[in-house]
Amino acid sequence: MNHPHLPFAAKRPFPDALLTELQALLGERVSTKEALREHHGRDESPFDPMLPDAVAFAHSTEEVSQIVKLCAKHNVPIIPYGAGSSLEGHLLAVEGGLSLDLSEMNQIVSINAEDLTVTTQPGISRKALNEALRDTGLFFPIDPGADASIGGMCATRASGTNAVRYGTMRENVLALTVVLADGRIIHTGTRARKSSAGYDLTRLFVGSEGTLGIITEATVRLYPQPEAVSAAICSFPSMTDAVNCTIQTIQLGVPVARVEFVDALAVRAINKHSKLELPETQTLFFEFHGSEAGVQEQAQTVEELAKDNGGTGFEWATRTEDRNRLWSARHSAYFAMLQLQPGSRAVTTDVCVPISRLAECVGETEEDLKGSYLTCPIVGHVGDGNFHVAILIDPDKPADIEEAERLNQRIVERAIRMGGTCTGEHGVGLHKMGFLVTEHGEDAIDVMRAIKTSLDPQNLLNPGKIFRLRAAG
Amino acid sequence: MNHPHLPFAAKRPFPDALLTELQALLGERVSTKEALREHHGRDESPFDPMLPDAVAFAHSTEEVSQIVKLCAKHNVPIIPYGAGSSLEGHLLAVEGGLSLDLSEMNQIVSINAEDLTVTTQPGISRKALNEALRDTGLFFPIDPGADASIGGMCATRASGTNAVRYGTMRENVLALTVVLADGRIIHTGTRARKSSAGYDLTRLFVGSEGTLGIITEATVRLYPQPEAVSAAICSFPSMTDAVNCTIQTIQLGVPVARVEFVDALAVRAINKHSKLELPETQTLFFEFHGSEAGVQEQAQTVEELAKDNGGTGFEWATRTEDRNRLWSARHSAYFAMLQLQPGSRAVTTDVCVPISRLAECVGETEEDLKGSYLTCPIVGHVGDGNFHVAILIDPDKPADIEEAERLNQRIVERAIRMGGTCTGEHGVGLHKMGFLVTEHGEDAIDVMRAIKTSLDPQNLLNPGKIFRLRAAG
Repeated sequence: MNHPHLPFAAKRPFPDALLTELQALLGERVSTKEALREHHGRDESPFDPMLPDAVAFAHSTEEVSQIVKLCAKHNVPIIPYGAGSSLEGHLLAVEGGLSLDLSEMNQIVSINAEDLTVTTQPGISRKALNEALRDTGLFFPIDPGADASIGGMCATRASGTNAVRYGTMRENVLALTVVLADGRIIHTGTRARKSSAGYDLTRLFVGSEGTLGIITEATVRLYPQPEAVSAAICSFPSMTDAVNCTIQTIQLGVPVARVEFVDALAVRAINKHSKLELPETQTLFFEFHGSEAGVQEQAQTVEELAKDNGGTGFEWATRTEDRNRLWSARHSAYFAMLQLQPGSRAVTTDVCVPISRLAECVGETEEDLKGSYLTCPIVGHVGDGNFHVAILIDPDKPADIEEAERLNQRIVERAIRMGGTCTGEHGVGLHKMGFLVTEHGEDAIDVMRAIKTSLDPQNLLNPGKIFRLRAAG
Repeated sequence: MNHPHLPFAAKRPFPDALLTELQALLGERVSTKEALREHHGRDESPFDPMLPDAVAFAHSTEEVSQIVKLCAKHNVPIIPYGAGSSLEGHLLAVEGGLSLDLSEMNQIVSINAEDLTVTTQPGISRKALNEALRDTGLFFPIDPGADASIGGMCATRASGTNAVRYGTMRENVLALTVVLADGRIIHTGTRARKSSAGYDLTRLFVGSEGTLGIITEATVRLYPQPEAVSAAICSFPSMTDAVNCTIQTIQLGVPVARVEFVDALAVRAINKHSKLELPETQTLFFEFHGSEAGVQEQAQTVEELAKDNGGTGFEWATRTEDRNRLWSARHSAYFAMLQLQPGSRAVTTDVCVPISRLAECVGETEEDLKGSYLTCPIVGHVGDGNFHVAILIDPDKPADIEEAERLNQRIVERAIRMGGTCTGEHGVGLHKMGFLVTEHGEDAIDVMRAIKTSLDPQNLLNPGKIFRLRAAG
């Protein structure tokens, strides 16, 4: 699928001299092989690949700095690459250039268990990180669907199913090492839990999608593994009932760890993909963390709220393996949904609204989707007001693409009208640049442009993403 | 006390034409009266006042925008003024200019109880806000010692005693309306709980100390008033024991709402000021929020930890009025400590370190203070690793000032050496500009400078604060 909105800037030349210099620095860790470039010019978005001219694998912050300096000298774009799991076209080399693969920088730098922090290189995946933390009694809660890299999660301000309790990358990154567009290396933040020391550069780079600097180290917060965990599944007569149960849970201040909405179609997809036998209705998945008594109390409160909202079959997954199976199925929902229509790709929406408008927003969306011939399962991190419609398309059918974009546009405009955002956790990438202007207004985008231009005057770092450098018109 | 470190830039001219234009806009709400300028050219810091040329009272975002445009036309600085409770010289008109008093913009714009958010004008104080929220069953937890304004709390990234549980302004501001240096009005963020929509402008302005824009509206998160609250006081044989008890509490994941350290000297000050009879020893104040059972469970865990660390006299304040008296006494600690030495001012330190280093950091600091002739009580939000030494000085005695700065410097350098920050919650203002460079390095400060210059090329907004516009050297 071609990108539907934007004309891109012209591809920039990639001089042979740069390749030679990169080879001198990296040896075989830089390559122009077609297959490798193919792999790095795409992501999980439905867009057709746009290949970089070369791919380099960095092994240290110092190396990243040297690579950036070489690219700056030749005015060649750099696209940082982690796990390749973006849903928004972040990794497409729209002006050509170098894909800078950080996946081999995947070491833990230090675990500071006493402080509940860990410092890692950017290429480590969230699962590998938690694997390494297992014996510490601590865990890192942020869990996007994919096994994303920590660097990529910083760059997109990711979240996932645990955010309702533990926050997103916004709340959980304490410090970063960043290579700037001129190759200088800076350190933002400290391992202290809070600080008022100057502009919040950490949070400026978190969510900047590789456009302001390259994250080469991150210090994130950890949490004690809860003494007790329990999970439950509950069916609801309608989406509205499920969402109302969620809203009441949040408003009562129940510290629920996870509350996920899965519509009947998505449950069917999950059942098929993960070999489960969940009732194929509007469903909420819950998880509770705390002391034994605390978890029991939370679960009891929520079970009552569920019943008040017509919930039935409140079913417990008390054994760890049942819970893991359940959440692993939920995390695979994206791929499961794609399989509802073999060969399809998904245009995925990611709106997030104030929770008081959530039932209305999902309700109007459901109505809208009923009028479409496309298959559109819905899942949502409803405790945060965030939900995803996976609009399944045949990427070779222009009519599908047009219809998906029509639905997408209506969903986003509805969310913004209700005081929400076009993206709760996936980022803007290529696909939501127009919506970003609708959401924030041209003057706020101008502030972003001013920052980008002041920090990256050559527009080297992941160019063509988030916003146009000049206002349209 | 003169500012010890910096030569300031020259005072800028304040043309009569500007005064005439401001009077046409604001009538009697702009003034050059000496008494008013005196009041606005100082704060709670020990520095000698530096008066603005005029003071204006704005009543709307639109008015702020017009005022800024007029000042920009005449190249006159603007210092936003809220409650005047800065401890770091934020409000001193170091280059002259206009003090823009926002205290009359003190209305609540909208309470969205269902979403647990409130939108306010910047001039409302934290106490007035909570008063207005009383009937909603919700509260706003951030509580610096002073009854600061919400705008000022945004600008300094404030926190207070509840941050260990509820976070700081960093975590609790969702959206802002900001007037830029050219008078344009932007809106950052939305009322949705999370977003990945572009650069995090909200958190760029939070903590920018009035140097990047003027905050004229803020949307912040609220929390359900806990079903049950209990508070306790416990004495410890030494600071180290008290801090170790705190560290263990945090590491166990007990969701304690408040845990405050008060040293024997500070307890004496508080007793005298607030007419209490607390044992004058190293003390922790605790507060627990949750369900009845949850609070009991937390309190029991902490009481055991306290005993393990030699704590004695674990005493409960179960009645609301006793608790209020206790926390009101804690919030008055700054003024109570000043009264240990009538006529004194305080050089207040605000370091914050990773919690694993806290006992060591406070311990070395205590040793250091023993060698000084100055009176130096200590209080701390120890659950966050943040503590304050109030170094009492006679502002007319140069020897006191020199000694206070010597101690201050050693405390900050120690904290930075231990991986901490020079300021946990008070901001940089005038006093910590040098330390900011030590903490972040000149290249990171350069990034801040680039942002400042791109958004405020005339350096109109609170000039001379946080960092020098050009690196020293």
